[in-house]
Amino acid sequence: MSLAKAIILSPSDNVAVANGKLEAGEALPNGVPTLTVIDPGHKVATRPIAAGEAVIKYAQAIGRATQDIAAGEHVHSQNLVFEAGRMPVVPPGTALEPTEADKARTFMGYRRADGRAGTRNFIGIIASVNCSTTVCKAISDEANRRLLPLYPGIDGFVPIVHGQGCGMSGTGDGMAVLHRTLAGYARHPNFGGALMIGLGCEVNQLTLYGQRGVVSSKRHFNIQDAGGSRKAVEKAMEILAEIAQEVGQLKREPIPLSEIVVGLQCGGSDGMSGITANPALGAAVDLLAGVGGIGILSETTEIYGAEHLLAYRATTPEVAKKLDGYIKWWEDHTALHGASIDNNPSPGNKRGGLTTILEKSLGAVAKGGQTPLTGVFGYGEKVTGHGLVFMDTPGYDPVSATGQVAGGANVIVFTTGRGSCFGCRPTPSIKVATNSTLYNAMEEDMDVNCGDIASGEKTIEQMGREMFELIIETASGRKTKSEEFGYGDNEFVPWHLGATL
Amino acid sequence: MSLAKAIILSPSDNVAVANGKLEAGEALPNGVPTLTVIDPGHKVATRPIAAGEAVIKYAQAIGRATQDIAAGEHVHSQNLVFEAGRMPVVPPGTALEPTEADKARTFMGYRRADGRAGTRNFIGIIASVNCSTTVCKAISDEANRRLLPLYPGIDGFVPIVHGQGCGMSGTGDGMAVLHRTLAGYARHPNFGGALMIGLGCEVNQLTLYGQRGVVSSKRHFNIQDAGGSRKAVEKAMEILAEIAQEVGQLKREPIPLSEIVVGLQCGGSDGMSGITANPALGAAVDLLAGVGGIGILSETTEIYGAEHLLAYRATTPEVAKKLDGYIKWWEDHTALHGASIDNNPSPGNKRGGLTTILEKSLGAVAKGGQTPLTGVFGYGEKVTGHGLVFMDTPGYDPVSATGQVAGGANVIVFTTGRGSCFGCRPTPSIKVATNSTLYNAMEEDMDVNCGDIASGEKTIEQMGREMFELIIETASGRKTKSEEFGYGDNEFVPWHLGATL
Ligand SMILES: [Ca+2]
Ligand SMILES: [Ca+2]
Ligand SMILES: [Ca+2]
Ligand SMILES: [Ca+2]
Ligand SMILES: [Ca+2]
Repeated sequence: MSLAKAIILSPSDNVAVANGKLEAGEALPNGVPTLTVIDPGHKVATRPIAAGEAVIKYAQAIGRATQDIAAGEHVHSQNLVFEAGRMPVVPPGTALEPTEADKARTFMGYRRADGRAGTRNFIGIIASVNCSTTVCKAISDEANRRLLPLYPGIDGFVPIVHGQGCGMSGTGDGMAVLHRTLAGYARHPNFGGALMIGLGCEVNQLTLYGQRGVVSSKRHFNIQDAGGSRKAVEKAMEILAEIAQEVGQLKREPIPLSEIVVGLQCGGSDGMSGITANPALGAAVDLLAGVGGIGILSETTEIYGAEHLLAYRATTPEVAKKLDGYIKWWEDHTALHGASIDNNPSPGNKRGGLTTILEKSLGAVAKGGQTPLTGVFGYGEKVTGHGLVFMDTPGYDPVSATGQVAGGANVIVFTTGRGSCFGCRPTPSIKVATNSTLYNAMEEDMDVNCGDIASGEKTIEQMGREMFELIIETASGRKTKSEEFGYGDNEFVPWHLGATL
Repeated sequence: MSLAKAIILSPSDNVAVANGKLEAGEALPNGVPTLTVIDPGHKVATRPIAAGEAVIKYAQAIGRATQDIAAGEHVHSQNLVFEAGRMPVVPPGTALEPTEADKARTFMGYRRADGRAGTRNFIGIIASVNCSTTVCKAISDEANRRLLPLYPGIDGFVPIVHGQGCGMSGTGDGMAVLHRTLAGYARHPNFGGALMIGLGCEVNQLTLYGQRGVVSSKRHFNIQDAGGSRKAVEKAMEILAEIAQEVGQLKREPIPLSEIVVGLQCGGSDGMSGITANPALGAAVDLLAGVGGIGILSETTEIYGAEHLLAYRATTPEVAKKLDGYIKWWEDHTALHGASIDNNPSPGNKRGGLTTILEKSLGAVAKGGQTPLTGVFGYGEKVTGHGLVFMDTPGYDPVSATGQVAGGANVIVFTTGRGSCFGCRPTPSIKVATNSTLYNAMEEDMDVNCGDIASGEKTIEQMGREMFELIIETASGRKTKSEEFGYGDNEFVPWHLGATL
């Protein structure tokens, strides 16, 4: 199959993106010849665009033509301008639709007592504070040695450990976020059971969890009460033997696809992220939304500049307003810390063909497909509903994915152009390469190659369908590359807010 | 030996502290009978104190008598007031002096190429970013399995991993602190060699370290360049085999005690911390300072309120001024985050016998003994000089100790009243119980029992001498309890400053 010379990201677009260098006179996918050389990643008009008309990419106005643009002409800073807040919003393109048969399909998952669906059957050993981390790891090591061989129905004992939990204010955002995150993991449907371990004198007291029904009283204890590290491990083994007895008997059963909750991530992006992997993931999310499942878009710092388009897709004014509130929070938060949320294309981005901030952020938003935005959630909040939702998180991958998993994501899909080493137990993480060079270099880490889009072997829609199927298979127990390597015990990084005292 | 009924913390004090409940008429250590019942932890006058006269505890004025106080009378809020900034500063007490023989003594350590002295011979596998954490752990696991048995002269391969390194501003305090901390570990004298591993696309680029001579070029690489997780582990094994060949031949040799650098920590404090373990550690620090070694006092939030007394002990005005600068920074920093640095005794503290903020903070400062303050350093900065120095850190133990180790601490001594589970490889951490109840409950975690002071079995000076000897033995290779359990791979927590993006 011949290389796709240029890619039209959405049927309503009036530009194509060059996939490799285009010589003058080369035909675009719609047959129009280029008028000049077009560099890789740069835009070229697929039809005439009149001065003042919107330039459409990702089915969205990314700016306005400052002069008449001919079909086949290079579109960039010389003839395209972005006017913040003054661009017409183009209605979203048509979301890829699942078939009627898709809507009746199931995956093989674990039904939990609270009604939610798990895609794995782990047991969690959760630290309230850094001071109980080494004991939590010793407990999970010992349980994986002594108990796991006895219970093949259990996927493993997973330590959930971190650097926080004390030396912090007992009230305020920092504590609220930590509490929500740990409680979200303790209750996660991929954990058949969980044991929380504290030191005893920390700010983040275990009683905050027991009282709220996160873990029953016999399923958490403090090392100081147990008489130290070794005794804590022995005490934990007794409790875990009981938990394992129960959890080890659980079996996968058919569960509607509507109970799949996919966290969307991108990290180590490259020029192809917004052209191959992210739109393909968006197509998979459209299919998932069509069967009633949930896709969680996040990384507020990376979608900044395109938030009004997400808001335009919101199903209610409240959803749009909530999103706007998070954007304002970030503007204040970054200003307070002397940091910048300004996502303007860098000189390197511009050389790569990105003209406007909106265009750049749309590449990230592309992971969310074209489906309406049905809800907006705070970091680590339990996500509910159906279709595409937004969760406010930083763009930093481990912190963002930790929030999504805390919110109930039972599958993560992570696109990367540079290559990512990531896993987030108890949730499987499917890693998607944006280009074949990366895929071939890091095949042992990458589950999907979206370089097949650039090579012309597959369309975005075809790859979206493949990813949708892989999500279902993964939810049903197929291991991801990162699970095979053993990722996920070190990537639990709850968002750190507030002063360390 | 009978229970010490009350403890006089310093010869110049005019109050004693009740050790358990004193009945009316019981004799204080100087023979004076109490006039009333004195509750545990509360103060009692050892001689008459006139109205307006300073009340002296820790050889320091903790406040002023508001009325005449008789010998044997209870001293608390009813007759003692603290006037911030208006208290006379009492010259420090006499520091415990080492003998002439002590000054000629050595410990058995490792002499490093940069001239510094190590107390352990580890090899570090250091992550630039959370994204390379799992690979760093896989590398150290594999090296401990394959290489360690071949080189008995190596103490082990230690992963130094964390949650930061990307999703952060490339400039500013957050990055400066992370860089200083990682560079400090890479250069730490307890590492005979180090290998740094990055992912490749992170903000915290490995080149920032190579360029500054932290690790030679062949001793750091990116996973993206190596071709993924498994290939990175294999590549690392080749490099580590070379490093191990060199490091495995190193031998301990006699090194002057002046090259011992002890980080002072307290966490999980109780009412006895400031009465037994901290003053005893202070006595050990006086001895260490007397032989030219370094003691690092830290935990700025915990000494707040007593900083003017530390400044009074400063050897130069610059040292005092630098300390003052850090205090002002904290006042701004906590205000910015809506947190409080106000260390005023809580109602529980008051019931326990603490009257003033100064008294409370002096209990923490007691770890620094009576010796002059010779230097003040920023978080993770390389400490230099001799005697007592201060390093600005939060009070949160793992974050504070990480800064001290980055600064070159080759021994940590950690006092605790509630029980602590802590280790900080590559540096051994001696754990000191403030009371016998804790020591007996968690004997497998505690190295020293300062309950022997409260029981009257030992004086503060005797216990200080014992700790001084244990520091020397530990520096020479004696394993601490936390090393025996395997602490230290999870307690590397660099201070998190700035916004996560
Ligand atoms: Ca990201
Ligand atoms: Ca292929
Ligand atoms: Ca070396
Ligand atoms: Ca502390
Ligand atoms: Ca004893």
